Amino acid sequence: MKFMAKKITRKEQIVAAAAQLFRNKGYNATTMRDLAEQVGMEAASLYNHIKSKEEILQYLCFKISDQYISQLNQIDQNNNSAAAKIREIIRLHIRIATTDVASVHVANNEWKHLSEPFLTDFVAARRSYEKKFVSIIQSGIDRQEFVDLHPTVALFTILSAVRWIELWYKPSREVSILELEQNIISMLMQGLEK
Amino acid sequence: MKFMAKKITRKEQIVAAAAQLFRNKGYNATTMRDLAEQVGMEAASLYNHIKSKEEILQYLCFKISDQYISQLNQIDQNNNSAAAKIREIIRLHIRIATTDVASVHVANNEWKHLSEPFLTDFVAARRSYEKKFVSIIQSGIDRQEFVDLHPTVALFTILSAVRWIELWYKPSREVSILELEQNIISMLMQGLEK
Repeated sequence: MKFMAKKITRKEQIVAAAAQLFRNKGYNATTMRDLAEQVGMEAASLYNHIKSKEEILQYLCFKISDQYISQLNQIDQNNNSAAAKIREIIRLHIRIATTDVASVHVANNEWKHLSEPFLTDFVAARRSYEKKFVSIIQSGIDRQEFVDLHPTVALFTILSAVRWIELWYKPSREVSILELEQNIISMLMQGLEK
Repeated sequence: MKFMAKKITRKEQIVAAAAQLFRNKGYNATTMRDLAEQVGMEAASLYNHIKSKEEILQYLCFKISDQYISQLNQIDQNNNSAAAKIREIIRLHIRIATTDVASVHVANNEWKHLSEPFLTDFVAARRSYEKKFVSIIQSGIDRQEFVDLHPTVALFTILSAVRWIELWYKPSREVSILELEQNIISMLMQGLEK
């Protein structure tokens, strides 16, 4: 059992190192040799832990995608107002983007390199996420909680407004995650003006 | 003189076709042969009009960057409130992203492929744009026009919130440019909630 536990940890190390490399160099430019060097292993030994570079890409993309979807479902099931739900969703994006920076970057920017059927599945998962998100916005408009906006424009403005965080955030920033959340939620929900 | 005018038009055609190719395939994957095919010329003849693929990339990146900077300066010189300035800046981003879609995409996503000194110049131009933009936000906070937010967070939230438009917008969308502007300005300035 100890051996099993060790093996899982080594795989996690490899995946984390791969996420960093994919983020810094891009998926295409990262070689198994780069990855082996990064984790201090022989390239051949890597294959005891992972099948291929793409296996790691699939893992990273669907790990992030699954997190978003399961948490969105949970948020949506809570008996809250649409505004409370949107706040939770914005918080969700900021939390994931500040805690799992490299994986989020890969899922946001390198998913195009997935092969089929993974590419189609990933795009479908994103569409389904957007569909549920937009239906929450629509329900807020219908219940007159929200101003009368085009729900798709509101959806992409919110999703886009939180996209810079994984590119900018690091723990040494003078802005805490809590302040980030408060600032961005305040801007998107109440606006910039007093 | 007629010949000159024709030559300029041909060059513009080549640049416009290159912008489309860079947008669809990426700068690296686009070859001069692709470009020649796209404009219906021999690859060798292209060089009568342009020096290299990178010359076009430079042209596209700095065309967009120059537009942003000159228009930001104009907006800033107008004797308006900080809120009026930010509104104008958001409008500026939406207008450029909906009228010159391919060039904006290239300037947003392919600028990394610029060689030196162009890369450094481009990054410096962007930094200077951001610096002026953040100083307008700061002045709005100082004059208590705006809520008390971290100005850098407000800056990147606004810049990021308009980044999706060039990826999504086409004239056949059911949302007009005016509606886009009104919706996004309303969200960022007054928020989603009533």
